[in-house]
Amino acid sequence: MTIELIGFDADDTLWHSESHFAVTEDRFHALVSPWSEPGETAERLLAHERANLELFGYGVKGFILSMVETAIEVSNSTIPPDAIAQIIGWGKEMMAHPVELIDGVAEVLDEVGSSYPMVLITKGDLFHQESKVAESGLADRFRRVEILSEKSPDQYRAVLERCGGVAPDQFLMVGNSVRSDVMPVVEIGGRGVHVPYRLTWSHEEVAPGQDPAGYHRLATIRDLIPLLSDL
Amino acid sequence: MTIELIGFDADDTLWHSESHFAVTEDRFHALVSPWSEPGETAERLLAHERANLELFGYGVKGFILSMVETAIEVSNSTIPPDAIAQIIGWGKEMMAHPVELIDGVAEVLDEVGSSYPMVLITKGDLFHQESKVAESGLADRFRRVEILSEKSPDQYRAVLERCGGVAPDQFLMVGNSVRSDVMPVVEIGGRGVHVPYRLTWSHEEVAPGQDPAGYHRLATIRDLIPLLSDL
Repeated sequence: MTIELIGFDADDTLWHSESHFAVTEDRFHALVSPWSEPGETAERLLAHERANLELFGYGVKGFILSMVETAIEVSNSTIPPDAIAQIIGWGKEMMAHPVELIDGVAEVLDEVGSSYPMVLITKGDLFHQESKVAESGLADRFRRVEILSEKSPDQYRAVLERCGGVAPDQFLMVGNSVRSDVMPVVEIGGRGVHVPYRLTWSHEEVAPGQDPAGYHRLATIRDLIPLLSDL
Repeated sequence: MTIELIGFDADDTLWHSESHFAVTEDRFHALVSPWSEPGETAERLLAHERANLELFGYGVKGFILSMVETAIEVSNSTIPPDAIAQIIGWGKEMMAHPVELIDGVAEVLDEVGSSYPMVLITKGDLFHQESKVAESGLADRFRRVEILSEKSPDQYRAVLERCGGVAPDQFLMVGNSVRSDVMPVVEIGGRGVHVPYRLTWSHEEVAPGQDPAGYHRLATIRDLIPLLSDL
């Protein structure tokens, strides 16, 4: 089987993202510690995030709003407004945070890009994702940059259509999320390559047994080079 | 000059949007009235919105965050957390609000679409805009739906490229914002048609004298039909 197009996820595949959420969440746990233990805080925050995904979609702004709601809830509406302002300030720091490429990314894209057309496929906040793509300096390497609201099988099919009608079995997708980068691609008949990041947001975790058969898992993105030579 | 493609803005051109912001802003003025007069509230809120645009982009989520920041500021950090929860609740109502088409839109799109290819070009929050496009039932009438982070001359050029390389002087754009729908289109050599909505967000207002020459202003979207026959 020939690969005609390689897709790359961005957050936590090309550059660090979840680590910034984790730093902010640690600060948040400390902020609300007078009212709530870390375990309970994490649980309530995730519940708000999940409920808000349907209304707000992915991204930092929804995360900020979920933290504010959680803070009001766990404090029984006694948290000082200044603490809420602080949470919003953390969100602004996250939006303005410089893009830090993951080790090896630039070299791997150079090498893969010399043999295959590549497309960047990310989901979330249009404005923030565009800023990060621009700041990363990587945009020119990709034939297209696709920012999606959700990575569903249908959205992947539409991307392949926009890339000139690539057949799904000639498409390979590389990303850190089994749920978003591997499962929907395998579902449409493509090939998924999972490169785990050291952190996975709970929402992106896949229950044991749900892993789709027939995908590859690599330790680091550098291992993509030998994998492609073996295919 | 032949028109080969007609672009339509969405918010406040095809469906109501600014009126929902206005209703929420009225509620907000009432909420913070113990600390701030409406005039001062509006001024501070707009200042926060403008400052936040660069970090958060357009859309309801940034608007909510700007209201929360304004409420904390004007109350000197004395606003009760429950009032902040209420502001977030209004934002959720806005995100979930049903799409209401502006009078005449469906008929005009039917008629224009029978003679011209059409593209929907909107800016703002990817997730919210996609939801509204889907809910409007209008998506099928457009050759493409383009959701942009900003409506700049370069972004319009890129849209025309993605629409198969339409020349700017064969493109006509219809929208309620002189700043976003008319000026950048006229700048690249296209034709702008301004259909004012009864409300204009201060950020979209254009100073007198900045109106570009050579664009059309219509009273309602229904007037587009006679305009197109005259061109």
